[in-house]
Amino acid sequence: MKIGIVGAAGRMGRMLVKQVTETAGCEICGGTEPTNSPDIGKDIHALAGLDPSGILVKDNTEKLFDLADAVIDFTTPAASVAHAKLAANSGKILVIGTTGLSNDQQAEITACGDKAVIVQGANMSLGVNLLAQLTRKVAAILDDEFDVEILEMHHHHKVDAPSGTALLLGKAAAVGRGVDHNTVADRGRDGITGARNRGDIGYAVLRGGNVVGDHTVMFAAENERIELTHKAGDRSIFARGAVRATLWAKDKSAGNYDMMDVLGLGD
Amino acid sequence: MKIGIVGAAGRMGRMLVKQVTETAGCEICGGTEPTNSPDIGKDIHALAGLDPSGILVKDNTEKLFDLADAVIDFTTPAASVAHAKLAANSGKILVIGTTGLSNDQQAEITACGDKAVIVQGANMSLGVNLLAQLTRKVAAILDDEFDVEILEMHHHHKVDAPSGTALLLGKAAAVGRGVDHNTVADRGRDGITGARNRGDIGYAVLRGGNVVGDHTVMFAAENERIELTHKAGDRSIFARGAVRATLWAKDKSAGNYDMMDVLGLGD
Amino acid sequence: MKIGIVGAAGRMGRMLVKQVTETAGCEICGGTEPTNSPDIGKDIHALAGLDPSGILVKDNTEKLFDLADAVIDFTTPAASVAHAKLAANSGKILVIGTTGLSNDQQAEITACGDKAVIVQGANMSLGVNLLAQLTRKVAAILDDEFDVEILEMHHHHKVDAPSGTALLLGKAAAVGRGVDHNTVADRGRDGITGARNRGDIGYAVLRGGNVVGDHTVMFAAENERIELTHKAGDRSIFARGAVRATLWAKDKSAGNYDMMDVLGLGD
Amino acid sequence: MKIGIVGAAGRMGRMLVKQVTETAGCEICGGTEPTNSPDIGKDIHALAGLDPSGILVKDNTEKLFDLADAVIDFTTPAASVAHAKLAANSGKILVIGTTGLSNDQQAEITACGDKAVIVQGANMSLGVNLLAQLTRKVAAILDDEFDVEILEMHHHHKVDAPSGTALLLGKAAAVGRGVDHNTVADRGRDGITGARNRGDIGYAVLRGGNVVGDHTVMFAAENERIELTHKAGDRSIFARGAVRATLWAKDKSAGNYDMMDVLGLGD
Repeated sequence: MKIGIVGAAGRMGRMLVKQVTETAGCEICGGTEPTNSPDIGKDIHALAGLDPSGILVKDNTEKLFDLADAVIDFTTPAASVAHAKLAANSGKILVIGTTGLSNDQQAEITACGDKAVIVQGANMSLGVNLLAQLTRKVAAILDDEFDVEILEMHHHHKVDAPSGTALLLGKAAAVGRGVDHNTVADRGRDGITGARNRGDIGYAVLRGGNVVGDHTVMFAAENERIELTHKAGDRSIFARGAVRATLWAKDKSAGNYDMMDVLGLGD
Repeated sequence: MKIGIVGAAGRMGRMLVKQVTETAGCEICGGTEPTNSPDIGKDIHALAGLDPSGILVKDNTEKLFDLADAVIDFTTPAASVAHAKLAANSGKILVIGTTGLSNDQQAEITACGDKAVIVQGANMSLGVNLLAQLTRKVAAILDDEFDVEILEMHHHHKVDAPSGTALLLGKAAAVGRGVDHNTVADRGRDGITGARNRGDIGYAVLRGGNVVGDHTVMFAAENERIELTHKAGDRSIFARGAVRATLWAKDKSAGNYDMMDVLGLGD
Repeated sequence: MKIGIVGAAGRMGRMLVKQVTETAGCEICGGTEPTNSPDIGKDIHALAGLDPSGILVKDNTEKLFDLADAVIDFTTPAASVAHAKLAANSGKILVIGTTGLSNDQQAEITACGDKAVIVQGANMSLGVNLLAQLTRKVAAILDDEFDVEILEMHHHHKVDAPSGTALLLGKAAAVGRGVDHNTVADRGRDGITGARNRGDIGYAVLRGGNVVGDHTVMFAAENERIELTHKAGDRSIFARGAVRATLWAKDKSAGNYDMMDVLGLGD
Repeated sequence: MKIGIVGAAGRMGRMLVKQVTETAGCEICGGTEPTNSPDIGKDIHALAGLDPSGILVKDNTEKLFDLADAVIDFTTPAASVAHAKLAANSGKILVIGTTGLSNDQQAEITACGDKAVIVQGANMSLGVNLLAQLTRKVAAILDDEFDVEILEMHHHHKVDAPSGTALLLGKAAAVGRGVDHNTVADRGRDGITGARNRGDIGYAVLRGGNVVGDHTVMFAAENERIELTHKAGDRSIFARGAVRATLWAKDKSAGNYDMMDVLGLGD
């Protein structure tokens, strides 16, 4: 499978080039950066710390779609909308890991799903998506004699709490239980809180060092605890998830897909 | 739902009486001990540390089946076979947590499933059964770039390693991957072991204090770990699982069921 | 060593009777309850779930001090003041686990240390006191490139957050670093918190099930974490600490001691 | 403080250059490689992924000792012996992280401690050395009602079990207890092991993914566990320990020191 990388010289782009090169069944056929980028003309594999291949970074994204079976895109919302239109025109697969899309931008991308296979995820890690799916299932099976608690740890530069992924996990638990997440979320416990409300979903936040992201969902009852944990060592896991999504997308019908579909866990 | 307890004065029997009494939707209607037991005639609730109810321990199990909608049985293999026949004759529900059955004894019990609802499990804990099911699913989804490791800790009196539950979890992982457990099990690592074989399922064993049972299944890949953990605080969790199984069994058709069915996870 | 238990029929009293009976080098010589208690005259060992010994609960505390080499006291502040005076008069050892003393009450007890060995602790668990001591030492050794975080989990009935023990651990870290705890404590993180301040001591709080008390102190730097953890299984650990303190106190000079002294960690 | 790096272009050398550059109170004054190295003449900071500084890799180690206040050495046993002699001649500080020294080589280095400050460690991580020290102390304080267990996890390429660091921790516990490690070590548990022997030090080994090294020492008694954990994220922690050792060594008297001295924990 021939894979093109948009934003090939960026941090995620380089990781994607490396991941594709190291994965059986696919290869890099090209990569692009914006016209004014100083990386235009550089060897795409050398940028990723690999042996040079002679494939150079270009600026013509339309030609990249012609050349490729699939394109992977961790760029910016506006660029991803443009890429989705190129996918629709060419019928090529597009895998999008870009975050921060507006509702309008999302709608434009979704519309392109009529003519191309588009896989999209707010978090492309297989593990996190799997953990969310397990959380939903376990929450549906166990009743509220099991208290749900979400614990996360991230590096000391992180500015928001709880993490977006922690909230994603808590919402998955709420869906599993059929309750409204906002009603049951118990955040920032401090001082005289009173006893825990039955049915709440609690959050606890640790910050320290350069931890990439550890998340645990606990289900705690009398004398029994179940814990589901994901630990991320570095951001390469997002590249791995994107490449797996790309291989999965081969021969699928046009449509909008997410990582749950990739994992075979949709519904 | 009226529930009878055979072996009502024993350690598990008292826990069952307590659990039934504290669970909505069911109540104790009676309990038995063998004819020569010194506990015959004692108040069944008082024995469980609850307020006396006037319901006394008796020795007539046949009458207990007449009185009850369901009977819970953590006794001995021979006794459980007899109870299964009483269930078949009376059409009443029987939940069995007895372990150590011979193949013949099991066959006799299974045959009784033609005429009664019989729920049986080697480990009645909801959590352990749920963990096994999750392990099988995750092992089926993740390929062998994720190394599977099983860690368990038990009290210092335990004489076998790894625990039966650890092996149950490892076998669930093997089923998920479609491999033969005996071929891939990697136990008792010590000395110059060489590098880990891809596809192995590894075991690590901790012993200490009075730990009732902690189990973790790890899926470890490059830069990413998923961990599924169960921690048992005391043996009351087996009583809780048995009572849940009893409530679940109401209005089911005659047949042999296990805890996976109770959890809604039997394929 | 002959040990007397005041409040011998209460929850902690029974645990203390059991612990003394199971510990080599000491034995129960008597126990008391207030004059109007319904437990006066009952067998002190039978109350603790042991075989009856013929030693009955009495109401004369003065005689108990005459009889005993040491007395253990988990009662009420006012009673503990009275017991300290009996210790001073008799020269017998007194170990106090009572909490909630006013400054005046504490001063009265401290004054009795002139004439008797008095060991006192807000938390009699060996493990928690040891953890606090380790925390202080590690915080003194590692500079603030290691972020200090305190994580605790307790049962869902607990009404305050973080736990008193978590704060005790955070204060130990602050002492180790020579900083003011109130200035650096970072509690109840939620929302847009901004990046973590270097030197802060962070708290995270989990609530669920019937967890007696788990505490972890983390020191997290770039690519390296040290974690110190204590897990309490039940309240018997306070009895164990008290009995160890009692045995330790033998042949010590009159004075006021705490659990750090018992552990040999008092500077 | 002016620091020179021998083996400056190697994997550990580059990490050391980066660590020194990012640490207050010290700076790189030069670095060497063997005469035939292709890296001679390259910019030492550029090799470490930093902005070029104009300081180039040279091959004259003697001149490096003249220039430097201290030299850091993660090279080979034979080279480290030569460096120790240069340190003795010049009176400069030498910090050695080289492993695999023969007894003769070690004796030669030790002899150089007469004339220079030499700091040496089999594992230069602050955290691991601190954990070993804590383990020794805790083992000395707690009696054998606390079962000692050592758990470690490493990447799937590791060929020996338990890890050298796990054994170092177990030996520290044995020293703390005043027992012979070989007599009490309980390794590779599998099958019908019988109950745990009181006083044993148990080992459990996990292998998976690319884990750099996680170690936990558990002290498990009835209803109470203390756990001391170290998690290594990457090998940069050895560079950090070495630089800290270098800064510590300033103004010390000639002699042979180890990381326990650096941490202020010698005895």
